[in-house]
Amino acid sequence: MADEESPAYPKVPRSTINRYKPRGKYDYASIHDIVNTMPIVHVSFPTLDPEDPFPAVLPMIGFMASFENQAAGLDEALDLYLHGYVSSRIMRLSKDGGSGAEKGLPLTVAATHLDGLVLALTPNSHSYNYRSAILHGYATPVTDHEEKVWAMEEITNSVLADRWTNTRVPPNKTEMTTTQILRVRIVSASAKIRSGEPHDDRKDLKDEEMRKKVWVGVVPTWIQYGEPKACEYNLAGNVPDYVKAFVDGENKEGRRKAEEAAMDGG
Amino acid sequence: MADEESPAYPKVPRSTINRYKPRGKYDYASIHDIVNTMPIVHVSFPTLDPEDPFPAVLPMIGFMASFENQAAGLDEALDLYLHGYVSSRIMRLSKDGGSGAEKGLPLTVAATHLDGLVLALTPNSHSYNYRSAILHGYATPVTDHEEKVWAMEEITNSVLADRWTNTRVPPNKTEMTTTQILRVRIVSASAKIRSGEPHDDRKDLKDEEMRKKVWVGVVPTWIQYGEPKACEYNLAGNVPDYVKAFVDGENKEGRRKAEEAAMDGG
Repeated sequence: MADEESPAYPKVPRSTINRYKPRGKYDYASIHDIVNTMPIVHVSFPTLDPEDPFPAVLPMIGFMASFENQAAGLDEALDLYLHGYVSSRIMRLSKDGGSGAEKGLPLTVAATHLDGLVLALTPNSHSYNYRSAILHGYATPVTDHEEKVWAMEEITNSVLADRWTNTRVPPNKTEMTTTQILRVRIVSASAKIRSGEPHDDRKDLKDEEMRKKVWVGVVPTWIQYGEPKACEYNLAGNVPDYVKAFVDGENKEGRRKAEEAAMDGG
Repeated sequence: MADEESPAYPKVPRSTINRYKPRGKYDYASIHDIVNTMPIVHVSFPTLDPEDPFPAVLPMIGFMASFENQAAGLDEALDLYLHGYVSSRIMRLSKDGGSGAEKGLPLTVAATHLDGLVLALTPNSHSYNYRSAILHGYATPVTDHEEKVWAMEEITNSVLADRWTNTRVPPNKTEMTTTQILRVRIVSASAKIRSGEPHDDRKDLKDEEMRKKVWVGVVPTWIQYGEPKACEYNLAGNVPDYVKAFVDGENKEGRRKAEEAAMDGG
């Protein structure tokens, strides 16, 4: 779907899709859309302990935007902002600087949407419909007050649209100090997208007797948002319209995208 | 929920939950359940290029079981089996052996379930209900024929219950050669689980005027499986009962877990 002409990340060895090349995407719009529609991303970074061979991995909230160009669309240059609970270690590492030549902690960030189970004639030809993005960049903590408040608002509204103005804001001094946000300057990125029906081997397709027994097709999948449950100390009455609208909108869009992927010529 | 007495992974520095300690779990059952109910895991490993500071990350299919003890439950010692498309690089690295003292490629594997949006009075107190597992281990390719066929069957049925026997099996020689499966011997692991309603600061809870305006509660979330769509070359008629049963079962269980998490004492 992405236009070849649209701005793209540089194709470097670490970001190049070598298997099923046509599924690889490097354009801003494809990659930014995957990140911004995913509630949780996985952030990997090398530990500073040379004795520990395992990368650290943290689930975090991530979204892409530009503080310098706040009206920027998904097809423009954006930074990745990260927010998460287990942040003390990653924050300390990013202040110390990473092992790379550029300032900041080198991070690899992954966001993957599961769009469907692809059921073929043979187990080997089974697959998923999915949209996956992997991004590489250098992370530094956001220290500027204005940028931090802006990022907190963007993060809150990325979790649930219009939530920020419907909460007790602005954050107080303690909240500003304890909230830690990372800005990641992306240096390379790619996406991989699979859609459509299964593809089986010619030999299996010729076996009509077997094909009458093995059902082939796609089971679409998406993130479903259920009925909002007020908590015990809620004094604000029924579920507000903006929450209902978000839940309905996400469910319709999730289903639509997954069903579109299932039917795609792809 | 996990029994303190149940077998657990060793608590080492890289796997220790330091923030919100009571959310940390080290027992087999909690960690294995998170992995085995997640259709996609993210696998991170250091690249062999010393000039590249970014860990490689691949989305893969993962499940935990024991070939030596096939009847093992989730609360027993299990290995992690991985299957994925972009496997040539990871397979090569795991054959070469990693930088660790033990044989195999050191991997960090992450599986995260989003169970709900936790909406508090202030953006700072917002959270997710989630179940996240991070595992560390050494990966080697499965070469034994019997173990490989067994793992392929387990993987296929972990994607959709009872699928294996309802497809064209056993795999032929080419399929056995081209399918690559990694077995990961886990050396450390932990899970982090958050459930229940939001927790707000005392000061905000005293502000009754504000509380009448800000709705607080939880929006449960889960992976929804939609209506299966037969593909164009399907000759097997309507959606089979085992596929319908899987879709219905997963949707009921996903909703139940997310709603239970929302109502949990936390």
